[in-house]
Amino acid sequence: MNAPLPAVAIRHVPQACIDALAARFGAQFSQAMAVREQHGRDESAFTHVPPPAGVVFAHSTADVADAVGVAAQYHVPVIPFGVGSSLEGHLLAVQGGISIDVSRMNQVLRIDEDDLTVTVQPGVTRHAVNAAVKDCGLFFPIDPGADASIGGMCATRASGTNAVRYGTMRENVLALEVVTASGEVIRTGTRAKKSSAGYDLTRLMVGSEGTLGVITEVTLKLYPLPEAVSAAVCSFPNIEAAVRTTIQIIQMGVPIARCEFLDGKTVAMVNKHAKLNLREEAMLLMEFHGSPAGVQEQAAIVQEIATDLGGQAFEWSSTPEERTKLWTARHNAYFAAVQSRPGCRAISTDTCVPISKLADCLLASVEEADATDLPYFLLGHVGDGNFHFGYLIDPDSESDRATAELLNHKLVTRALALGGTCTGEHGVGLHKMDFLRTEAGDGAVGMMRAIKVALDPHNIMNPGKIFSS
Amino acid sequence: MNAPLPAVAIRHVPQACIDALAARFGAQFSQAMAVREQHGRDESAFTHVPPPAGVVFAHSTADVADAVGVAAQYHVPVIPFGVGSSLEGHLLAVQGGISIDVSRMNQVLRIDEDDLTVTVQPGVTRHAVNAAVKDCGLFFPIDPGADASIGGMCATRASGTNAVRYGTMRENVLALEVVTASGEVIRTGTRAKKSSAGYDLTRLMVGSEGTLGVITEVTLKLYPLPEAVSAAVCSFPNIEAAVRTTIQIIQMGVPIARCEFLDGKTVAMVNKHAKLNLREEAMLLMEFHGSPAGVQEQAAIVQEIATDLGGQAFEWSSTPEERTKLWTARHNAYFAAVQSRPGCRAISTDTCVPISKLADCLLASVEEADATDLPYFLLGHVGDGNFHFGYLIDPDSESDRATAELLNHKLVTRALALGGTCTGEHGVGLHKMDFLRTEAGDGAVGMMRAIKVALDPHNIMNPGKIFSS
Repeated sequence: MNAPLPAVAIRHVPQACIDALAARFGAQFSQAMAVREQHGRDESAFTHVPPPAGVVFAHSTADVADAVGVAAQYHVPVIPFGVGSSLEGHLLAVQGGISIDVSRMNQVLRIDEDDLTVTVQPGVTRHAVNAAVKDCGLFFPIDPGADASIGGMCATRASGTNAVRYGTMRENVLALEVVTASGEVIRTGTRAKKSSAGYDLTRLMVGSEGTLGVITEVTLKLYPLPEAVSAAVCSFPNIEAAVRTTIQIIQMGVPIARCEFLDGKTVAMVNKHAKLNLREEAMLLMEFHGSPAGVQEQAAIVQEIATDLGGQAFEWSSTPEERTKLWTARHNAYFAAVQSRPGCRAISTDTCVPISKLADCLLASVEEADATDLPYFLLGHVGDGNFHFGYLIDPDSESDRATAELLNHKLVTRALALGGTCTGEHGVGLHKMDFLRTEAGDGAVGMMRAIKVALDPHNIMNPGKIFSS
Repeated sequence: MNAPLPAVAIRHVPQACIDALAARFGAQFSQAMAVREQHGRDESAFTHVPPPAGVVFAHSTADVADAVGVAAQYHVPVIPFGVGSSLEGHLLAVQGGISIDVSRMNQVLRIDEDDLTVTVQPGVTRHAVNAAVKDCGLFFPIDPGADASIGGMCATRASGTNAVRYGTMRENVLALEVVTASGEVIRTGTRAKKSSAGYDLTRLMVGSEGTLGVITEVTLKLYPLPEAVSAAVCSFPNIEAAVRTTIQIIQMGVPIARCEFLDGKTVAMVNKHAKLNLREEAMLLMEFHGSPAGVQEQAAIVQEIATDLGGQAFEWSSTPEERTKLWTARHNAYFAAVQSRPGCRAISTDTCVPISKLADCLLASVEEADATDLPYFLLGHVGDGNFHFGYLIDPDSESDRATAELLNHKLVTRALALGGTCTGEHGVGLHKMDFLRTEAGDGAVGMMRAIKVALDPHNIMNPGKIFSS
């Protein structure tokens, strides 16, 4: 898919810049085409963008600072790279430049068990964080599905299944170390739980998609592992019943830890992929955290709401094995869906609306999608009002792509009219620049742009993302 | 107290600017000395600053935009004013200019009961928000003590007693309308619970202390009123036992709604002021929210921790009347303390440290304070690691002031060394500029300053705050 890419020239990377990087980084700098190509793509449906001119494999903050310093000298773009799981084209070298791969910066630097914080390098993945802190009886809840890098999760303001209870990266990053556009190393925030000390640079960097700096260290909040965890699956006669159940759960203030929706077709894809036999109907997949009594109390309230709305087959999974199987299947829904149509790519929507508007937004968009022949999956973090259609397009079909874009456009327009956002957790990247302008208005986008220009005057930090040219 | 004020010239407000404001605003613009003086002070210990040249009483966003527009034309400073409860000199016209009083912008614009959100004008106070949403079974938890304006609470990133469970203004503001330095009206955020749509301008404005724009509309998160609420008071043989109890409560993940500490001397001041007979020992004042069973469960865990650490007289207040009496006494502790030394002013500290460092930080600072003759109060939102010494100085005593400043300096130095912040909730204002540089570093403060310059090139938005000249 190459049509919606803004037509901006690839900037030339001078040989002197390449030479300087090679001299400084030796074997940590690669221009091998396979390496460049691997760093020039992500999980988005964008293709046909030339790869970056080279890749620096950073081992330390000093490496990142030096790489950015060299790039700054030559006004060459730099694109931070973690594990490559972006869905919005964040990693594509649309204006050329150098990829800075931080995946080798994978050290857990410090666990402050008594403060419920952990400090990591940006290449540490969320599974690695959890493996490191598990023995302390702690966990890091943010779960975007993919085993993404913490740096990347900061950059996109990621969230996922647990956000309904624990918040997003916005709420769970305490402090950062960042290499700025000039190659300077700064720190934002402290390990204190709250602060009123000046502008909130941490929150400015979280969600900035690599356009304001390269994140080189992250301090995260942790949570005590809940004493009791219980998961439940509930099937519904139709989508509306599942969605209305969700709305009531949230409005009643039940502190549900996960509240995930899948439509019947998506359940069927998951069944086939994970060899499960879930009822192929609209479904809520839920998890409750707390004391044993608290979990029972929450679940009883939810079961009552669900039953009132026609929910059936409220089934429990209390063993860790059962739960893991269920959540693994949920996390693999994307792959299950993509495999259901060989050769396809998914164009994923990411709207998020106020909870009371969820049914209106979702049901109308299902109707629109069903009126086309395009296959899709549909699932969502509905407890937050966030859901994803994944339109499964043949990447060579102009017609498929046009249909998907039209459906997405209608969905976003509807979500914005209902007081929502075009992107709940994936970011703007290459794909939602126009939606951002519609959502935020020229004034707010102008303010964002003024900040970008002030902090990155030569536009070298992941240029071509968030802002259209 | 005038010594620590940076020596910056008061800017001249041209007669043409005054005339333009008078023409546009008529009776909504005042130059009466009493009005100016009322708008040229706050609850800080700073005095001897000349008042603003005039006060615009804004009734609408258009009024604010026009007032800022006129000020921008003449490069005249503007200082937003809510109820005047700042503790850090935010409202003082240290570089002259015009005060924009938003207290008449006091409309609750929209209650979205089904989405647990409310949209208000900036002059609405937190009590007024709660009065407006109570009949919907909802409440707004952020409670800085004073009945502050919501606009002011945004500007200082306020928090207070409930933040240990519900977060601060950082976590509870969903969207803003802001008048920028050029007089343009922009919107940040939406009513969706989460978003990855570009830079987080909402979080940038929250805590910006009026230096980036004037907040003219605020959308807040609300919470269902808890089914059960229970408050408890527990006395301890010494400060350390109270603090260690707090640390364990937080480390165990008890979702306590309020966890406030007062030392014995402060309890005595409160007793005298509120005619109570609380034990005049170190004390925790706690509140639990949840289901009846959940509240009992939390309280039982806390009682066990407290008892293990020597806590005595664990007393319950389950009726709303008893609870109100207790929290009113807590909220009046500041006034109780100031009245305990007639004619005094309080210099309040505001450090916040990682929870495991709370005992180290607090106990050493008590020892330092006790080694002087200066009277003080001591209380805090200890569940967040945040506490306040209030040094009760004779405003005419150079010696008192010097002692207070020295104690504060030692305390902040200690808190920063322990990974904390110089201000948990009051803001930088006039008083903590140097601390901010020490805490954040020149790199981060330089980034803040670059943003300030980009968004307010003529430095008219509450100049002289946050940044030293």
